[in-house]
Amino acid sequence: MKNFTSVYDIDNLQDTIAKALEIKEKPLENPTKGKGKTIGLVFLNSSLRTRLSSQIAAQNLGLNVLILNAAQEAWNLEFADGTVMDGNTVEHVKDAIEVLNQYCDIIAVRCFAGMKSKEDDVKESILSQFLKYAKVPVVSLESATRHPLQSLADCITITENWKEKRKPKVVLTWAPHIKPIAHAVANSFTEWMQQMDVDFVITNPEGYDLDKKFTKDTPVIHNQDEALKDADFVYVKNWSSFDDYAAMPKVEGEWMLTNEKLENTHQAKVMHCLPVRRNLELSDEVMDGDHSIIYQQAKNRIFSAQTVFSDILDNLNKD
Amino acid sequence: MKNFTSVYDIDNLQDTIAKALEIKEKPLENPTKGKGKTIGLVFLNSSLRTRLSSQIAAQNLGLNVLILNAAQEAWNLEFADGTVMDGNTVEHVKDAIEVLNQYCDIIAVRCFAGMKSKEDDVKESILSQFLKYAKVPVVSLESATRHPLQSLADCITITENWKEKRKPKVVLTWAPHIKPIAHAVANSFTEWMQQMDVDFVITNPEGYDLDKKFTKDTPVIHNQDEALKDADFVYVKNWSSFDDYAAMPKVEGEWMLTNEKLENTHQAKVMHCLPVRRNLELSDEVMDGDHSIIYQQAKNRIFSAQTVFSDILDNLNKD
Amino acid sequence: MKNFTSVYDIDNLQDTIAKALEIKEKPLENPTKGKGKTIGLVFLNSSLRTRLSSQIAAQNLGLNVLILNAAQEAWNLEFADGTVMDGNTVEHVKDAIEVLNQYCDIIAVRCFAGMKSKEDDVKESILSQFLKYAKVPVVSLESATRHPLQSLADCITITENWKEKRKPKVVLTWAPHIKPIAHAVANSFTEWMQQMDVDFVITNPEGYDLDKKFTKDTPVIHNQDEALKDADFVYVKNWSSFDDYAAMPKVEGEWMLTNEKLENTHQAKVMHCLPVRRNLELSDEVMDGDHSIIYQQAKNRIFSAQTVFSDILDNLNKD
Repeated sequence: MKNFTSVYDIDNLQDTIAKALEIKEKPLENPTKGKGKTIGLVFLNSSLRTRLSSQIAAQNLGLNVLILNAAQEAWNLEFADGTVMDGNTVEHVKDAIEVLNQYCDIIAVRCFAGMKSKEDDVKESILSQFLKYAKVPVVSLESATRHPLQSLADCITITENWKEKRKPKVVLTWAPHIKPIAHAVANSFTEWMQQMDVDFVITNPEGYDLDKKFTKDTPVIHNQDEALKDADFVYVKNWSSFDDYAAMPKVEGEWMLTNEKLENTHQAKVMHCLPVRRNLELSDEVMDGDHSIIYQQAKNRIFSAQTVFSDILDNLNKD
Repeated sequence: MKNFTSVYDIDNLQDTIAKALEIKEKPLENPTKGKGKTIGLVFLNSSLRTRLSSQIAAQNLGLNVLILNAAQEAWNLEFADGTVMDGNTVEHVKDAIEVLNQYCDIIAVRCFAGMKSKEDDVKESILSQFLKYAKVPVVSLESATRHPLQSLADCITITENWKEKRKPKVVLTWAPHIKPIAHAVANSFTEWMQQMDVDFVITNPEGYDLDKKFTKDTPVIHNQDEALKDADFVYVKNWSSFDDYAAMPKVEGEWMLTNEKLENTHQAKVMHCLPVRRNLELSDEVMDGDHSIIYQQAKNRIFSAQTVFSDILDNLNKD
Repeated sequence: MKNFTSVYDIDNLQDTIAKALEIKEKPLENPTKGKGKTIGLVFLNSSLRTRLSSQIAAQNLGLNVLILNAAQEAWNLEFADGTVMDGNTVEHVKDAIEVLNQYCDIIAVRCFAGMKSKEDDVKESILSQFLKYAKVPVVSLESATRHPLQSLADCITITENWKEKRKPKVVLTWAPHIKPIAHAVANSFTEWMQQMDVDFVITNPEGYDLDKKFTKDTPVIHNQDEALKDADFVYVKNWSSFDDYAAMPKVEGEWMLTNEKLENTHQAKVMHCLPVRRNLELSDEVMDGDHSIIYQQAKNRIFSAQTVFSDILDNLNKD
C-alpha cells in the first residue's frame, strides 16, 4: 500500500489480519527492514496508545523515529489556502508538510476533528492537505472521520477471539459522555466491520445516527436491549450528533454498558478503543471483568501499526 | 530485584554500590542486555537529571526507550477508584498502567507528592496504583515520599569520596526555600544512610521534623552549628513541615549553607540533589567551591539507574 | 572545530561546503562515527526544522540523542549571576549546563533573542553562559544574534544552484511582518555571504538597518527595486529595528516579495529560512513557483548539521 488512511487502502483484509497475527508471533523477525529510513510521527492532538504503539512498531522494524508534538514544540499552523498570514498562525501546513517530505520516508499524522465546522471535518480539512502535499506515504494516526489503525487492531482482536464456524454478531453501541466526541472511531469501526465476515449492527439513541456515508446498509437500531440480544462482541463508544453537528440531544433511558445488559448477549466480549470514562461509558464491573478484551485491543495496536509500516516499507524498498 | 521503589528492594547495599562503580568504569560493557526490551519512562512531573540519566542508562544497556510526558502528551488521569468519570479526567490511571503493561517490559514513573493531602501523599496514592496494577517491574523516578535512584547515586558518591578507615559523619541539613517542598529526597536519603556504615544526623528547625517512620532512631538536632560540627559530608535540602503538613513555620536564625558554616566541619564535602536555589539554600561560594561534589552526584545518577535497570533485566532474562 | 556558533568557527568555508555536499551524496557513510557518544539537543524555544534535521544528522552518525524541551519538561531557568533565587526560577542555567556536561559529549542549544533588552541580546546573555560553562563542544541551534546552521545550509544551497563562472549577485531583502522579529538569521546570512565568493547587498526600509557589527562594508540599499536589479538569489526575511531596538517603524511602499518584483532580476532563485508567513513576507505565487529553492534549503539543514557534528566528532575522537 502507499497511504493508509482507511480500509480502502487495504488490498485484502483477511490477508492483512493473517499477516498481523504472524507479526504478533514474531515481532522482531525483521529488525532491519526500515534501516536507514525515517518515520515522522506528527501529533496535532493528545495520544497515549497511538504514540507508544507506533514507536514500538517502528523500532521493531528498525525505522528511525522522529516525534513532533506540533503545537507545543514547533509552530502554530495555518490551514487555510491563499490567506494573508497576518494573524496568530506562523507556518502554513503545506510548508510544514513539504519540509517533512524532505526529512521523512513515511509521515504519520494525528489530526482530530475540530468539532466546530461539520464541513471542515467531513472533508478532512487537515488530513486532505497531508494527502495533497505529502510526497511520501501518509499514515493516519486518527483523522477527523476515521481511526484506521484502531480498526485494524479491532479486526485482529475479533479474529483472535472467534473460533466458531458461524458468523459472530458484532454490535457497536453508543455510550454516554459529557462532551461532544468525534465520530472517527465509530465510523471507522463500521467501515471495517462491513468488510469482515460478521453480522454487524449499530445501536444509538435517536438523534445520534452516524453519517449515512459510513453506515450504508448497516442496521441502525435505536433500542439498545434489542440490538445487544445474542451479541458475541459489543463495542462501546460515545459520539455526538452528526445531523445536528456536535450537539448532544437529550437521551432517553440508560445507555451505559453494565453486566446486567450483557446478560442477554452470548457472553459477549466487550471492546473499547480507550481512553474510557469508567462508570459513564461502561461500568467498573464490565471494564475489570472477564468480558473485557479491551487491553488486548490496546496491545494489538502495536501489530496493526507494524503490519501497515511493514507493508509500506515493502513498497518503498521495491522502488 | 523486581521493583525498585526504596532501599528495601536492594539485597545488599554494599554489593550494589560496588556493582555501580564497576558499571561506571565500563558503562558500555553490556550493550545488548536490554535488546528487544522496552522501558517506558512516564513523567507526571518535571525532570531534568532523571529524564536524561535514565535515558542514557537505558541506551547503555540497549533498551528501547519510550518517554511519556503524561499530562501534556496523553490524557488527564483519574486516580480515584470507583468514581463516575464525568469530570475533567479522561483516563483512569489503572487503564493507562494496564496499557503500559502491554507495551513495556519495565515501567518507570515520576509521581511527586501533591502536597495537598497528607493522607494521599503518605500512602503514595499514585505509586501504589502503579505497584498494584503493573504486571512488569516498576521503577520509581521519585514518588511522594522517596527518591531512591537519587539516594543510590548519593551512596555511590559518598563511597567514591571516602577513603579513610573511620566512619564518616554525614549530616542532612534543612535549607530555606520560598514554597512548600516535598519530603521525598530527605526521607529517602535518611533511609539509605541508615543502611550505610556512617554516623548520620539530621538537623532542621523546630517544626520541620521529618516523618518518624523514616527518621526512626536517627538523631534530629535543632541546632545547625552543633550538628555540622566535625561533619565529613553535608547534604543540603529543603522540606516543608510534616506535622503541620506542607506548612512553612517561621524559622529562627540563618540556615543557608555558607563557607563560614563549613568551617567547623572536617572540610566536609557538600551534596545536593539539584535543582538548587542559589543564595537561598546554599551560597554561590559553596556551590562553586571545592567542597561541592554536587555535579558528581548528578553524574552518578546515570550509574544508579543503570545498576537498577541492569539488575531488573537480569531478573527478567532469568525467567 | 570545537564549538560551532558562527562562521568564525569554520576553518575554510569552501572546504566545509564541499564536505557537506559529499555527506549529502552518502549520508549513511559513517554510521558509527558517533557510537557511544551522546548529543543533547536543548530547546529553550520552538523548533521544527532544527529539531528534526539535527536528530536525523545525529542518527546518521550513530550518536545517541537526548532532547530537552527545557521550559516544558525541566525547570524554569535562572540566567542572572549572583542572584538570590527566591523568585520563580528553580535552577540556574550554569548548574543545568554543568549537569549536561556530565551527560553529553556535545551540547546543542536553541536560545532566541528575548527582544526585550538590546544589551542582553547583543551580548548573547544565554549562549555566552553555555560557552562559559560547557566543558564539551557547544553547537548553536540559533542564538540571539546568529543562526549558523541555517547559514551553512544557505551556502550549500547557493553552491548547488550556481554553475556559472561569474559571481552571483545575492540580495538579502527585508519583508513585512506583524511583530518584532529577531535579527539572528539576517545577521548570520550576512556574515556567511561576506565569506562567500558573491556580490552581496542588503535592502531594507529606513530605520531597519542591521547592526553595523554584522553588515560592515556590505552595501545597504533602502530602495528594494534598485537592490533587486540583476539579482541571482533573493533571500527574504523580516527583522525589527536594531537602532530603536525591537521597534517596528512605519514603512513606505510595498516590501512583500512578488513575481512582479522578481521580473527585473536574473530569474533569481528565492530563499527563506522558514517558517514563512505567506502573502505577508512573500506571495503564494513566489513560494509555490519555480523561483523558490526554499524547501531545498530546509533539506540542506540535515547536511549542515551533519557536517558540523561530524567535524566535532573527528575532533573528539582525536583526543
